[in-house]
Amino acid sequence: MKVKNRLLNFEGYYIYQDSDSFKMSLDSLLLSNFVTIRLRDKKILDIGTGNAPIPLLLSFKTNAKIYGIDIQKESCDLAKDSINLNGLWDRIEIINDDANNLADYFNSDSFDIIVCNPPYFNTKSLKLKNDNACKSIARHESSLTLTILLNLAKIYLKNGGTFAMVHRPDRLIEIIEVMKKNNIEPKKIRFVYPKRGKNSNMLLIEGVKNGKPGIKVLPPLIVYNDADVYTEEVKMMFGK
Amino acid sequence: MKVKNRLLNFEGYYIYQDSDSFKMSLDSLLLSNFVTIRLRDKKILDIGTGNAPIPLLLSFKTNAKIYGIDIQKESCDLAKDSINLNGLWDRIEIINDDANNLADYFNSDSFDIIVCNPPYFNTKSLKLKNDNACKSIARHESSLTLTILLNLAKIYLKNGGTFAMVHRPDRLIEIIEVMKKNNIEPKKIRFVYPKRGKNSNMLLIEGVKNGKPGIKVLPPLIVYNDADVYTEEVKMMFGK
Repeated sequence: MKVKNRLLNFEGYYIYQDSDSFKMSLDSLLLSNFVTIRLRDKKILDIGTGNAPIPLLLSFKTNAKIYGIDIQKESCDLAKDSINLNGLWDRIEIINDDANNLADYFNSDSFDIIVCNPPYFNTKSLKLKNDNACKSIARHESSLTLTILLNLAKIYLKNGGTFAMVHRPDRLIEIIEVMKKNNIEPKKIRFVYPKRGKNSNMLLIEGVKNGKPGIKVLPPLIVYNDADVYTEEVKMMFGK
Repeated sequence: MKVKNRLLNFEGYYIYQDSDSFKMSLDSLLLSNFVTIRLRDKKILDIGTGNAPIPLLLSFKTNAKIYGIDIQKESCDLAKDSINLNGLWDRIEIINDDANNLADYFNSDSFDIIVCNPPYFNTKSLKLKNDNACKSIARHESSLTLTILLNLAKIYLKNGGTFAMVHRPDRLIEIIEVMKKNNIEPKKIRFVYPKRGKNSNMLLIEGVKNGKPGIKVLPPLIVYNDADVYTEEVKMMFGK
């Protein structure tokens, strides 16, 4: 069922979501806040954009043209409706296709920034697959592995362009290896912790195509306080 | 000048230090608390042990035999005096030699655990070298690079043995690459932050020789609270 929700906790921007599908997650909000956007950046790509939470959120931070690509038609339809609803036709463009077909739409070395909230779970390690095909594609690496994703970043980023994604800390080593292999030098990382005293369950990482070695580890981001309420930092991101 | 200090904030254990040399650092305390020691572990090596803060601290956590090796005679003399003072002759043994000569003392695949608080600064990136030769060796990679260190870990750890060290977060990517190259699979990492809201300035990392991929990112460790006083967690490590 198609539902209209507020994009953030203030009036004026809305996002269409499928109540049976994969909801806009905290991941997309954190990634949109994390990624470095420079004034000169003109062209951004969100791979596996879903119903486009990241392009919608990034439209607050930049005047760059933002492209979102997703293989699922249902998600793209929701994304387009949200873009129309918020009057962002000239700012965000949605492409309903497999990211492996990017060459049909763009030249190599053409993006300043590529972002991705990718499917998290390595299919090899997965016991139970979700019956809901839409959820399954959004959560599992059946169609977009880390290797494919970073290879796309390598091809479609300009020299010195920025790649940023959210992922799972248990795959930190593999993430770094695949980034390095594709000449995306990790430059900034932030670990997200569900609560004080807990292990990290999410990481935000940013790299630069052909960048120089040397990484910053940003302050920890704690999502919930001891009373199970969003911490002030996360509340701020939601617009209070 | 040789001075006698308390090893921790309670009576009974002391450490000799050279007041002109490199003081026992927080690094050694954090690393000693961080490293995983199992009941079955029988043989531990501390590479670049200095005046042996790590062997002294580890002697509280384990009954294993602990070896410390250091190239500097002055540090080794202090270490031996501390061991005698605390009556730990049968628990800790100090070797005054270059770690590259380990083969003269030990067989390969012979340690359960190897720890190291290595020289931090890559000599290539260093502009100003300290005049004090003792400090210089303790802080710069002139004699013990990451590559040499991890290669020693690979050779002298038993299969399934543990390597743990403290290092700088800006070299995280290189650390992971060199560990992987030497079949030391990173399994546990903890980032240390000087204060809330600051970038990490220290990391603790542990790997297992021929271990399976998959890493845990432990809760952040904050050293000072907003009033510039050690946080409760650090106070606890010092023995209050």
